[in-house]
Amino acid sequence: MRILIIGGVAGGMSAATRLRRLNEDAEIIILEKGPYVSFANCGLPYYVAGEIEERSKLLVQTPESLQARFNLDVRPESEAIAINAQTKEVTVKNNKEEYTLVYDKLILSPGAKPLIPPIEGIKEAENIFTLRSVPDVDAISTYIDNHKPEKAVVIGAGFIGLEMAESLVQRGLNVTIVEKAPHVLPPLDEEMAAYIAKELHDKGVEIYTELAASAFEESGKVVVLENGEKLESDLTLLSVGVKPNTDVALTADIETGFRGGIVVDDHYETSQKDIYAVGDAIVVKQQINNQDTMIALASPANRQGRQVADIISGLDRFNKGSIGTAIVRVFDQVAASTGLNEMQLKSSGEQYDVIHVQGKSHAGYYPNAGTVLLKLLFNPASGKIYGAQAVGTDGIDKRIDILATAIKAGLTIQDLPELEFTYAPPFGSAKDPVNMAGYAALNIIEGVSESIQWHELEEKQSDGHILLDVRNESELIANGQLPNALNIPLDSLRERISEIPKDQPVIVSCHSGLRSYIAERLLKQNGYKVKNLDGAFALYSTIRPERIIK
Amino acid sequence: MRILIIGGVAGGMSAATRLRRLNEDAEIIILEKGPYVSFANCGLPYYVAGEIEERSKLLVQTPESLQARFNLDVRPESEAIAINAQTKEVTVKNNKEEYTLVYDKLILSPGAKPLIPPIEGIKEAENIFTLRSVPDVDAISTYIDNHKPEKAVVIGAGFIGLEMAESLVQRGLNVTIVEKAPHVLPPLDEEMAAYIAKELHDKGVEIYTELAASAFEESGKVVVLENGEKLESDLTLLSVGVKPNTDVALTADIETGFRGGIVVDDHYETSQKDIYAVGDAIVVKQQINNQDTMIALASPANRQGRQVADIISGLDRFNKGSIGTAIVRVFDQVAASTGLNEMQLKSSGEQYDVIHVQGKSHAGYYPNAGTVLLKLLFNPASGKIYGAQAVGTDGIDKRIDILATAIKAGLTIQDLPELEFTYAPPFGSAKDPVNMAGYAALNIIEGVSESIQWHELEEKQSDGHILLDVRNESELIANGQLPNALNIPLDSLRERISEIPKDQPVIVSCHSGLRSYIAERLLKQNGYKVKNLDGAFALYSTIRPERIIK
Repeated sequence: MRILIIGGVAGGMSAATRLRRLNEDAEIIILEKGPYVSFANCGLPYYVAGEIEERSKLLVQTPESLQARFNLDVRPESEAIAINAQTKEVTVKNNKEEYTLVYDKLILSPGAKPLIPPIEGIKEAENIFTLRSVPDVDAISTYIDNHKPEKAVVIGAGFIGLEMAESLVQRGLNVTIVEKAPHVLPPLDEEMAAYIAKELHDKGVEIYTELAASAFEESGKVVVLENGEKLESDLTLLSVGVKPNTDVALTADIETGFRGGIVVDDHYETSQKDIYAVGDAIVVKQQINNQDTMIALASPANRQGRQVADIISGLDRFNKGSIGTAIVRVFDQVAASTGLNEMQLKSSGEQYDVIHVQGKSHAGYYPNAGTVLLKLLFNPASGKIYGAQAVGTDGIDKRIDILATAIKAGLTIQDLPELEFTYAPPFGSAKDPVNMAGYAALNIIEGVSESIQWHELEEKQSDGHILLDVRNESELIANGQLPNALNIPLDSLRERISEIPKDQPVIVSCHSGLRSYIAERLLKQNGYKVKNLDGAFALYSTIRPERIIK
Repeated sequence: MRILIIGGVAGGMSAATRLRRLNEDAEIIILEKGPYVSFANCGLPYYVAGEIEERSKLLVQTPESLQARFNLDVRPESEAIAINAQTKEVTVKNNKEEYTLVYDKLILSPGAKPLIPPIEGIKEAENIFTLRSVPDVDAISTYIDNHKPEKAVVIGAGFIGLEMAESLVQRGLNVTIVEKAPHVLPPLDEEMAAYIAKELHDKGVEIYTELAASAFEESGKVVVLENGEKLESDLTLLSVGVKPNTDVALTADIETGFRGGIVVDDHYETSQKDIYAVGDAIVVKQQINNQDTMIALASPANRQGRQVADIISGLDRFNKGSIGTAIVRVFDQVAASTGLNEMQLKSSGEQYDVIHVQGKSHAGYYPNAGTVLLKLLFNPASGKIYGAQAVGTDGIDKRIDILATAIKAGLTIQDLPELEFTYAPPFGSAKDPVNMAGYAALNIIEGVSESIQWHELEEKQSDGHILLDVRNESELIANGQLPNALNIPLDSLRERISEIPKDQPVIVSCHSGLRSYIAERLLKQNGYKVKNLDGAFALYSTIRPERIIK
């Protein structure tokens, strides 16, 4: 049996090595368009930054090592340019020749390629780069070494854009980010992304949002924005998204679907018999709402590659879909998410509720505990968890990994308090932020607490709600005041309760939401109509700094 | 309504504060035998070490702060000495008087107390300490300051014993550990605990196992072991376990059960109406095998405290039981576990299989990735996960927290490869050790791989199995050789396969188990009868260092 694999990175190489372990006698040929296989995609920005020092570390495997260990016939710089599904042949082009290969089974793992919008002047520009491969990173590094650029513009503030913005700052460049969406890090919701925007700002990165580049002038030295503003750029990184690499699939009339991705059945077979596809190029089911989506992440690609190898080898597997879990470090802050965000929930018409909890990465009384801000999106009737997002300096990966596991397992918010985590002071708390998020969501579902979101405060205040801030005076002085707020510290609330007019609805806030919830309960049981400002001052002052009185 | 709570730490105080949030008008009185409430139990060893510098950090709340914020009547140094369940009265003794309090609801959260075995000379000793409370830690600190002890003996190598061993080393003492069980850290299995034993040894701590202290001589200055050996000790820490603090419960004829713990129904009510109990003193269901157990951990105690408050307030909650998740840092190593270990599985008669996988805390190509050794115990038929253990320098808490979530959710080993975790090079890998553990277990269940455990190797070798080590020569020189092993590096295996006699069963090993599995598959498909040495050289050389040839 001859198995051909097009694409030698995550999905393709996982398939190849698993196939070999299950089929010692199969002939396995991997065609890779680029010069390298099995390289560390996700490490590329860190190599630009110099955090990964040796280029060789990016090259996890070589054709020679794969030949020696797995008896794989790996052919780099070999592009599959056509597939004939009837004759089961693939036409291959390398720098010397074109030739055809017949196959018994064909696996497509072509990945995705950077979107390059047809912006005026883009072709004439000499300083615009994308980042997807080792040659890309070589080109950027060489350019930096030779041209000593001082100013960089990063167009697109997704995961790669932000990692590269940081890397370019580490290399000494002045960086400006341009993002078409209303906020950086569009996969996260606005108020969570605001923490990352603040971190970028604090580290000297300028940010333009709700603006795209409309032209490049002077061979790319000037980036013209939609509003006419011009940015100088010695080096421009374009990271406005990716699209599936379906060129060769289309030569075999393979069906494509959502956003041009390759359609596969739950055994990864395409519309053409014996042709399978995995990785960034395929359409997958979002497990949470069962809708079509595309997820360009290494983890699902690796899983799919292994599963398709199992399927071809006769083992019982099927593609259950993905939920999408991702993380990005931006200087000293980390942001991560799993499942659906608010925009996705709105567009798929789901009823959802939101809570934010702020906790510590480990016991507060042990040194160096970081703040963990955790957002949970859930169904207010069933408690089903739709998604989670977190930002902070430490322990963000752990909380989102736990919640990704909970979502995959179909746990509800009612289950989160029951989870038993490792606890010793350097590692966690007796009540982990994940437990706390469960308690907070349960309070909402059971009506023990009611909340409003940050974007509702201004309107509620105009409507005659009293804003009660229960922080201490020292905190008001140190961190600033909420607009038009009555201040009564929580520990004085019982004795000063008569200062709050009983005929007006009250919104309570504190720093992180813990004390305001206690105040909410106290006031509610004294006959007040009260809601809690979810996320409290810490969140509000990050997303609405202009409303804070210092 | 008057609610009395006996015990003002984790469970008791969680109950009190939640009760207040739900019942502004209830009278809530907390009786605490010791001088402090709501203190940071788990932080005590770190205060001895000096890692937590300020004593005040251990005191999370005070009676005054709890009065101001929660209107709680907190009475420290007030011991409940008797309960009359018929008249609903508790007799309280403080340093001035005895008095009685009537209650509508009574919550017992008395905790556990250190076991003090009746060893000869223990009462005469002046240098023997236990660690459970702030006064305990004060006593130890004062003793160290005043007596400048040089040699310490820690009796009992459980979590607290090991944390204190490290803390005493940090304070400059020479530490010897004495443990009655066959290995340190008895909650973990032998080969996992061996990594911690090695770390202790590397840091200069001497260890005696399978030995108890049989006497103390010279006012405790000499610890006599069962075998007659004598250890000098300037300071002895006794940490041989805890027992439930049931003195006051027994005055009300409250039913006790497993290991003397208080028996409660699934609403935490004891055998006496309107008397509830939570925390370390109660018998709980181990959720995995539904057997009675006792779990002295802060996390379940906090949850139970909150739940009993909900139940008393009319909310629908019940005690689902616990699985037990714990972690300990011992110098530069971390060990954690969740669910059942091998001893527990054997004693409850479960069929189980074992795999060990060794992975990295984050992408190997990004700096400072630590090794994560993960052990999974599962049912070979159903794939049900019984327990997990991990050791390493970094990322141990995350993996055990994920697996604790998986166990709570009833996930099987088939589900582990499906889990989607955050991946960027500083945080994880495209295939996390948890995913890899799932793949490895699935290989065992599906017969793709067969393994033997470290304790089976010697016997198999005597039985005529060939031991094939597929590491490279440089590794053999650097790390040592397995006994009587044939060495063929994996990448030469196909060409040198004829060197392996085909009529004998083969056991393969490499460093961590990845290459040996590839070799196993290669040989199997060439007609050999092969098993994999689970955990490979890395594990074997840690638990059986005396068999390694250097």
